[in-house]
Amino acid sequence: MNGAESLIRALEAGGIETCFTNPGTSEMHIVAALDRAAKMRCVLALFEGVVSGAADGYARIAEKPACTLLHLGPGFANSMANLHNASRARVPIVNIAGQHPAEHLRYDTPLKSDVEAIARPYSQWLRTSSGAAATAADATQAIIAARTPPGQIATLIVPAEAAWSEAGQLHPATALPIPKPPMPGSDSVEQAAAMLRSNLRTALLLAGPALYGRGLAAAGRIADATGAKLFAPYPFARMERGLGLPRVDRIHYVLEDAIEQLKEFRQLILVGAAPPVAYFAYPDKSSVMTSPDCKIHVLTTPSEDGVGALESLSSDFPTRSPKKTSDEAQLPTPIHGDISPHGVAAAIASLLPENSIVVDESMTSGRGLMAGTARSAAHDWLANTGGSIGIALPMAVGAAVASPERRVLCLSADGSSMYTVQALWTMARYGLKVATVIFANRAYAVLKREFAGLGVGAPG
Amino acid sequence: MNGAESLIRALEAGGIETCFTNPGTSEMHIVAALDRAAKMRCVLALFEGVVSGAADGYARIAEKPACTLLHLGPGFANSMANLHNASRARVPIVNIAGQHPAEHLRYDTPLKSDVEAIARPYSQWLRTSSGAAATAADATQAIIAARTPPGQIATLIVPAEAAWSEAGQLHPATALPIPKPPMPGSDSVEQAAAMLRSNLRTALLLAGPALYGRGLAAAGRIADATGAKLFAPYPFARMERGLGLPRVDRIHYVLEDAIEQLKEFRQLILVGAAPPVAYFAYPDKSSVMTSPDCKIHVLTTPSEDGVGALESLSSDFPTRSPKKTSDEAQLPTPIHGDISPHGVAAAIASLLPENSIVVDESMTSGRGLMAGTARSAAHDWLANTGGSIGIALPMAVGAAVASPERRVLCLSADGSSMYTVQALWTMARYGLKVATVIFANRAYAVLKREFAGLGVGAPG
Repeated sequence: MNGAESLIRALEAGGIETCFTNPGTSEMHIVAALDRAAKMRCVLALFEGVVSGAADGYARIAEKPACTLLHLGPGFANSMANLHNASRARVPIVNIAGQHPAEHLRYDTPLKSDVEAIARPYSQWLRTSSGAAATAADATQAIIAARTPPGQIATLIVPAEAAWSEAGQLHPATALPIPKPPMPGSDSVEQAAAMLRSNLRTALLLAGPALYGRGLAAAGRIADATGAKLFAPYPFARMERGLGLPRVDRIHYVLEDAIEQLKEFRQLILVGAAPPVAYFAYPDKSSVMTSPDCKIHVLTTPSEDGVGALESLSSDFPTRSPKKTSDEAQLPTPIHGDISPHGVAAAIASLLPENSIVVDESMTSGRGLMAGTARSAAHDWLANTGGSIGIALPMAVGAAVASPERRVLCLSADGSSMYTVQALWTMARYGLKVATVIFANRAYAVLKREFAGLGVGAPG
Repeated sequence: MNGAESLIRALEAGGIETCFTNPGTSEMHIVAALDRAAKMRCVLALFEGVVSGAADGYARIAEKPACTLLHLGPGFANSMANLHNASRARVPIVNIAGQHPAEHLRYDTPLKSDVEAIARPYSQWLRTSSGAAATAADATQAIIAARTPPGQIATLIVPAEAAWSEAGQLHPATALPIPKPPMPGSDSVEQAAAMLRSNLRTALLLAGPALYGRGLAAAGRIADATGAKLFAPYPFARMERGLGLPRVDRIHYVLEDAIEQLKEFRQLILVGAAPPVAYFAYPDKSSVMTSPDCKIHVLTTPSEDGVGALESLSSDFPTRSPKKTSDEAQLPTPIHGDISPHGVAAAIASLLPENSIVVDESMTSGRGLMAGTARSAAHDWLANTGGSIGIALPMAVGAAVASPERRVLCLSADGSSMYTVQALWTMARYGLKVATVIFANRAYAVLKREFAGLGVGAPG
């Protein structure tokens, strides 16, 4: 078997079942191997920003990596903006990038590029395969690197001759040593417990797996037992929410609003989250959102076991039956009239099917959406984590591929949608269960708002 | 005045009149300064791949740089695929990229990125401005770097505090020391003259400014006097052609066709061009297109004065009045019937207005177009130089902005057009005189062809 087949078999043996790709000529042997692959599903895209955004959305829902297949330096470059978002979401992704064979790189050819230099800024693990005999082991190492907590971007560059040359026999698959996140020290949990037992107003800021499943359940028990408030950063990767689930408030995007929201808290416990700061800097303003006298404690770093730490912490407190409020018993009702932000939120809140996935990049048009949909049927909400716009449509593709039985509602600002509008083709081609809503305000609204905020005059 | 105003004034003083941009929040002070700029024209795009492709097209026609304004690392990343093409076209471009202020970079914020690392692979000159007092001098250096022959990509990163802080008074503009390309040594011209006087079948391979204007005219005189054949590489930046102009044949894309096309030549003189090689490598095939016994002489490297060298060389030969053939007297006539590649070429050949600009990324659908349009009214033809598809629509934007009085015909394959389809918005917004034709074969035709060429089985 050749290096390309060896590569794909190793990816399959390592549990990779999905390949998002927009391949080119230099990857044709890998494409041929994918064609013959027993388990790998290939999903085509017309632009690499769709590929990387889909791999991010897939990983957020599947909780394991997909692979991508990208065409040389320019193909990788096109994927980078959404890899920026994926790196901030801390999801696992395995990128396979083509490269010319060494013999061809001697010449001054049009597509010659330094793929390693292009890939490095957004690859926590990076390797160029030394030849066909190495591709399988390289792929295995890439998967282990990608699955190293909390999740990393691993890029394997496969020169064409490594793909087309004879690789020998593949060794039988053995279980990969997937690294587990370590628990924080017991003193960290004890300190958090002491903070929660104090009379000071305390909040938990949750990120990563602390925002869904067992992590969220444990956080909810802690909140019920102690009165602590649960927050998520504005840029979170995935939050489970809706009827029957603990309420987590998102920290506001606008700096002044966030300062107002957080000013009452004297203690903040970070669970895989960074201290909350503004997206952007402004002249003569601090970027910090918390009150100056707020004590911040890191319960877990992003690489540590936030779910385990929350479960350990929750066992320090007596379980109470969760508060039931009357509005939890029934869904909101839709309202009628002209289209308005409030009306859109009410429509979503009342009609969203249970177990849906909402992908949200509604930007300025949608800043009230989360508050208005907190009492919908239970669902997952995925947000832009890195501030590079153009992820909503690709992420909806990835979420739908990861979980074909669930409905995906994709909410995108018009400007954001234009970055990666090619994703609509992939949705149509594969019949994905995605409903896409574009908030068409026909304006650079975020820039107008920020321009005004800087006090630099009237925009032209 | 602040650093942003100082920056824009220095760009204007250095002859930069056009800024293609898709700015973000961190560049708002630069946007405000652009708003107040006296001479600079801003052209907005909805995606940064349009920005960089437009700057390339602008430079090919205007023969001087435009600037771009890009939003942090992800904005730069989105521009990179078309910067790859621009770097292969060897055009001048000045990129201005935003960056968070140092105070804000201390925090773990969503849009934090290593802008220098992202920009480095496609920036021949790269600098982060040290502060407001330095932005004007930095801009001047960037322009000089960009205009260093044959043309380079210069990237200046401007942290937000360098834009918003006080810069002091700008010094009066002085003429920039724009570097001129050096002539090659006289032995190089003498050797080319000796080759042209031999009885061996000889060709000139022209690139850069040798393909239009004075360079092309001198090459035409040499061809007329000596019988040498004129070629352009398949990936050329700009060619002047049509009725009354010297005939230059493009080297074929397909390796076997190019080998057949070049096999009769025993001598090849390179004028700013690299030796012709295949785009891609294939197992057990050489990438070289010329005959093994073809002697290759470098008359000029891309950084040397190819136009001057051709003029010097042409003066070694007696001037003959150019051959007139009967078909030069009149334009081709259109043909009727179903749409076909031949019919499209005939339509363009007969109807193309004089002095138009044709932007060609028609890929597999258009491989006969240049042959079929050689006898059109005189025009410029711009091609994809780096093999990263998705440049046609942006390049048409840039060409139309550079030369508003000329008509632009943009020919794009459907797959290519999907990469940067956002360019249609810019064409509409500014009423650019661009007619865009999409060759919709609704297939990954180039991949099917290459897949078949590799003998790796039937595609799935």
